[in-house]
Amino acid sequence: MYGLHGKFRAHPGQRDALLDVLLDAAGRLRELDGCYLYVVSTAPDDPDGIWVTEIWRDQAAHQASLAHPAIQALITAGRPLIAAMSDRSEFTPLGGKGLPAGATR
Amino acid sequence: MYGLHGKFRAHPGQRDALLDVLLDAAGRLRELDGCYLYVVSTAPDDPDGIWVTEIWRDQAAHQASLAHPAIQALITAGRPLIAAMSDRSEFTPLGGKGLPAGATR
Repeated sequence: MYGLHGKFRAHPGQRDALLDVLLDAAGRLRELDGCYLYVVSTAPDDPDGIWVTEIWRDQAAHQASLAHPAIQALITAGRPLIAAMSDRSEFTPLGGKGLPAGATR
Repeated sequence: MYGLHGKFRAHPGQRDALLDVLLDAAGRLRELDGCYLYVVSTAPDDPDGIWVTEIWRDQAAHQASLAHPAIQALITAGRPLIAAMSDRSEFTPLGGKGLPAGATR
């Protein structure tokens, strides 16, 4: 598996517009094979901050999603709203609670 | 909802023992109300690193879990294996893919 957690900072006043784009992306990913988790969150300590937490079957499934036309359109829509990206961590999920049956060891 | 992502660094040679404790904790949490996600991961860039990613119904559900006797026992077992904790982020999930039905907006 392949996990990603990172922060987007929206331009001032643009956070809710960026949230809408990211939640729309999450909806598109429902149909995509290999996406186990895509959670969009606000940041309690940053009124312009948005956290996105993703878990994929593997890194290739994540890469493939970035080339999907609907996701490309959302990246195009979201990019002008983003002031900065930070605090990115990549991780290799081994197991736990909340992943699809069969995804965990 | 309430989310947490953070890194544990195990003492050298103790990562796999700490992984076992955390995966055991994840198993206990399966029975606990209010825990939507508890994923235990290795860190691709740190042989002693472990990421834990959690999503709870609310912060109170997370707090309550820490007082559960089985979780207390695992905290006692895990603590001597941990050299450091870092890179903790708290977040407020709004929605997305992979959360239980009814948990998202």
